[in-house]
Amino acid sequence: MITTTAQQILRVLMEMRLRPQRHGPTDCTADNWNYTEQETAGNNGSLYSFDDEWDDDSDDGKSNGGPQADDGGTMQRGGAHSTMKISLNKFPGFSKTPNPEVYLLTKHVAKGNERLPIYSGEVGPVWLYPQAQLDCMVADPKKGSKMYGLKSYIEYQITPNTTNRPVNHRYKHFDWLYERLVEKFGCALPIPGLPDKQVTGRFEEEFIKMRMERLQGWMSRMCRHPVISNSDVFQLFLNYKDEKDWKLGKRKAEKDEVVGVKIFYTIDPELPELDPAQVEQKCETYNQFTKSMDNSVKELLAVGHLHWKRCTGPLQKEYRQIGKAFQNLSSVFNTSAYPRESTLTEALTATGKTYEEIAEIVAEQPRTDLHFLMETNTEYKGLLGCFPDTMGVHRAAIDKVKEADHLVATNKISPQDKHTMEKNLSTMSYTLQAEMNHFHSNRIYDYNRLMQFYLEEQVKFYETIAEKLKKALSQYATM
Amino acid sequence: MITTTAQQILRVLMEMRLRPQRHGPTDCTADNWNYTEQETAGNNGSLYSFDDEWDDDSDDGKSNGGPQADDGGTMQRGGAHSTMKISLNKFPGFSKTPNPEVYLLTKHVAKGNERLPIYSGEVGPVWLYPQAQLDCMVADPKKGSKMYGLKSYIEYQITPNTTNRPVNHRYKHFDWLYERLVEKFGCALPIPGLPDKQVTGRFEEEFIKMRMERLQGWMSRMCRHPVISNSDVFQLFLNYKDEKDWKLGKRKAEKDEVVGVKIFYTIDPELPELDPAQVEQKCETYNQFTKSMDNSVKELLAVGHLHWKRCTGPLQKEYRQIGKAFQNLSSVFNTSAYPRESTLTEALTATGKTYEEIAEIVAEQPRTDLHFLMETNTEYKGLLGCFPDTMGVHRAAIDKVKEADHLVATNKISPQDKHTMEKNLSTMSYTLQAEMNHFHSNRIYDYNRLMQFYLEEQVKFYETIAEKLKKALSQYATM
Repeated sequence: MITTTAQQILRVLMEMRLRPQRHGPTDCTADNWNYTEQETAGNNGSLYSFDDEWDDDSDDGKSNGGPQADDGGTMQRGGAHSTMKISLNKFPGFSKTPNPEVYLLTKHVAKGNERLPIYSGEVGPVWLYPQAQLDCMVADPKKGSKMYGLKSYIEYQITPNTTNRPVNHRYKHFDWLYERLVEKFGCALPIPGLPDKQVTGRFEEEFIKMRMERLQGWMSRMCRHPVISNSDVFQLFLNYKDEKDWKLGKRKAEKDEVVGVKIFYTIDPELPELDPAQVEQKCETYNQFTKSMDNSVKELLAVGHLHWKRCTGPLQKEYRQIGKAFQNLSSVFNTSAYPRESTLTEALTATGKTYEEIAEIVAEQPRTDLHFLMETNTEYKGLLGCFPDTMGVHRAAIDKVKEADHLVATNKISPQDKHTMEKNLSTMSYTLQAEMNHFHSNRIYDYNRLMQFYLEEQVKFYETIAEKLKKALSQYATM
Repeated sequence: MITTTAQQILRVLMEMRLRPQRHGPTDCTADNWNYTEQETAGNNGSLYSFDDEWDDDSDDGKSNGGPQADDGGTMQRGGAHSTMKISLNKFPGFSKTPNPEVYLLTKHVAKGNERLPIYSGEVGPVWLYPQAQLDCMVADPKKGSKMYGLKSYIEYQITPNTTNRPVNHRYKHFDWLYERLVEKFGCALPIPGLPDKQVTGRFEEEFIKMRMERLQGWMSRMCRHPVISNSDVFQLFLNYKDEKDWKLGKRKAEKDEVVGVKIFYTIDPELPELDPAQVEQKCETYNQFTKSMDNSVKELLAVGHLHWKRCTGPLQKEYRQIGKAFQNLSSVFNTSAYPRESTLTEALTATGKTYEEIAEIVAEQPRTDLHFLMETNTEYKGLLGCFPDTMGVHRAAIDKVKEADHLVATNKISPQDKHTMEKNLSTMSYTLQAEMNHFHSNRIYDYNRLMQFYLEEQVKFYETIAEKLKKALSQYATM
C-alpha cells in the first residue's frame, strides 16, 4: 500500500517538475526537457536546443534569466524555488517545497560509486573530503564565432589542478553545469547561482574580466565542495577529453535519474540515528543562522555600495576641488611680484597636486579593497539565498514525521514505516549538518581571508596618503 | 583760493560722514557722535552712550551689526564702505570713495610723534618695524554683571608681551577700538573687521571660546602691524593703568582729529618721489592681486566648508555603518555554534569597533586641522574685503591728479599745486606699497604656517587610522 502511495506521490511530484519556468532546474530526468521545449517554445521562441550546436548566449538570454538581484535577496535563480512556484500555480494545495514523503517512506541502502558517506569529524558530521583539494583556473577568455561570423561568443579556458590540462567552455556550458548540479543536488545542497548573465556589452573588456573573475569564484567554490567536485557531471566539465567525450558525457548527465530528493538515497551517515526532536532543533538553529547571516551580508553590501559610490563620486570630486583650490591660491600668490614668494608657491602647488593625486587614489581604492569584500559577500548572498529552499525540504520532512504517530494510529502506515521515516529523516539531518559544517568551515576561511585582505589594503591606502602628504609638507619653509 | 576750495570740500566731506550707518566708522572727529545719536536715537532706541557706563552687548546688537557674510564678500563691516553708501544716498554725485582732493592740494610736512616714516627695505618701501614685536594674549573669559545682575557680559583678559600686565575688556571695548582704528587709519590701511557679533547664546562655552580665539587672532594681527600697534589708541587699549586712565584716554581718542584722509599728512616716505604713471601701475597690480586672492580664498573656504560638512555628516555616518555592519556580522557568526569561530568573531568585532572609532576621528578631524585653515582664511577674507575701499581712495587720487593738467590750463590750480598733488600722490603710493609689503610678508608667514599645520595634522590623521587598522588586522588568524 505504502509503496503504491509513494509511487503515486512520486508521479505527481515528477509531473510538478515537468514545466520548469525560465529553464528553472528540475529534479526530474532529462527526458522532461523535450516536454518543456514543446510547452514553452511558443512563449519564448528560443530554448536550449539539445543538439550539440548550442546557440549563442544571446539566444537564451530571455529564457534563461540568470541570477538577478531581487529585494528579498533570496536564491535569485531556479533551484527548487522556481519549480515550486509552478507547483503552487498548477497544483494548488501542494507543499511549496519538494515533498520528501517519497524518500521518507522508502527503505534504501546507499551503495556503489554514488554512495556519499558522512563521518563524525571534530566539528560534528562531515563529508568525506578528498586528500588533495580540487581547484581550477578560469582564464584566457577568447572570442569565438560560428555561423560564418554571424554569432560570436566568449570561450574561457578552465585548467584543473589535477590534470593541468585546459578545457574550453562558454558561459552557457557553465549554465548547463549549474542546471545539472541543481537538478541533482539542489534538494540537499545549496547550489549558488552563476554570475549575472548580461547580454549587452558582452565583449567589453571590463565585463569579460568581471565575468571571468566571478566564474572563477563560482568554480572554486564548487571545487571546494567534496560532493559536488567528486560528481560525474562536474568531473566531465573539467576533464572531458574531446568533443565526443563531452557530448556523450552531457547526454549521460542529462539522463541521470538520481536527482531531486533521490539524492538522499545515496547518502550514508556512519553515525547513530538522531531522534526527530534533535533533527528539528538542528534545523531551527541552521535556519536562524542562515537568515541572520543573509541579513547581515545584505547590510554589509548596502553599506559597501554606499561607500563605493561616495569614494568614486563626491569624495573624489571634493579632493580634486581641494587640490585645485590650493593650486589656484598658489597661482595667485605667484603674481604678487613679492620677492620672497617662490618657496611657498612651489610648496602650495605641490600640496594641490598631492590632493589631486589623493582624489584619484580615493576613487581607485574601492576597486582595490572593497571589490573583493563586495564580490565575496555577493557570492555569500547568493549562497544564503539557496538555504530557504534547502531548509524547506527539511521542514517538510520534519512535519511529515510529526504526523507519523497519527498515520500509524489510523493504519495509514505501519510502525515499521514510522521507523523508516525517522531513520531517513536522521539521514537528511546528517546531510544538512555535514553541509552546514562545510559551509561554516568555508565561511570562516573566506571571511578571515577577506577581512585580512581588506584591512591590509586599507592600511596601505592610509599609509600611502600619509606618505604623500609628508612629502608635500617637507616642501614648506621652516620659519 | 585753493585753500578756500579745500576747506569747502572738507566741510562737505565731513558732513557726509556725520551719519554713519549702523555705527559705520567715520573719518571725522568724535564730535560727530553726538550728532549721530540725535539723528538715529529715534530709530534704534539704543546707541553707544558716551558716558563710561557702557551698555550690555545686546543693547547695541541692532545698531552695530558686526561683520556679516555677504555674497560679494567685500568688507563686511563699516570701513569707508558704509559711510559711502550714505554719501551716495544723501549726496548724490559725490565720489563713492573718500575724496582725497583736500589732502592732495595741501602742502604738509609730517613731524612730531605722529610722523610715520617709510623706508626702503629689501622688498621695497616698508614701514618702520619695532625691534621687538608686540603681541598679546587674550584669555580667561569671565562673566560679569551690572545693574544688580540684570545685565551680564563677558570680560576677557588681555596681556601684552611688553608689560605682562593684564587688562580687562569686553567685546564692546574691542568694537570701540575697531571703530577708532577705522576712523583713524581706514583710508590708508585695511582694518579687518572684528569677529561676528552674536547676540543669542553669548554665554555658551563653545561660543565664548570661539569668540576669544577670534579676538586673539584679530589682536595678534593688529599687534603685528607697526603703525597700528604703535598708535596711542591701541597702546591705551593694551596698557591703561586704571579706570580713570582708560576714561581719559578714551575721550582723547574720540577727539583725535588726525583721522580719515588726514592720516596721509603724517606719512613721511624717505624715498624719491614717484611719477603718477608708476603710482597707477602699482595700484593696478595690487588691485588685481587682492581681487584674485579674495576669489581664491573664497574658493578655499567654500571647499573647506563642504569638506567639513561631509566629514561630520555623511562620512561619519558611513564609517559608523561600516563598523556596525562588521559587528553585526560578528554577532551572527557568534551564534553559529561552530567550534572554530571565536578568533574570527573577536577580530571582526574589533574591526567593527575600529571603524566606529574611525567615524569619530573623521568627524573630529576638521576641528583639528581644517579649523585653523578656515579661521585664517576667514580672517584673510575679511582683510581682503577692506582693500576695495583702500584702493578706491587711491584710484580717486590718481584720477584727480590726471585732471591736474587740465586744471592748470583752466587756471583752477597753479603748476605749483599740480606738483604738490603729485608729491602727495607719491606719498599715498608709498603708503600703499609699504602696506602691501606688510601684507605680503604676513601672508607668506601665515600661509606657510597654516599649510604646515594643516599637513602635519593630516599626516597624523592618516597615520592614526593606518595604525588602528593595523592593530585590527593583527587579530585575524594567519591561515
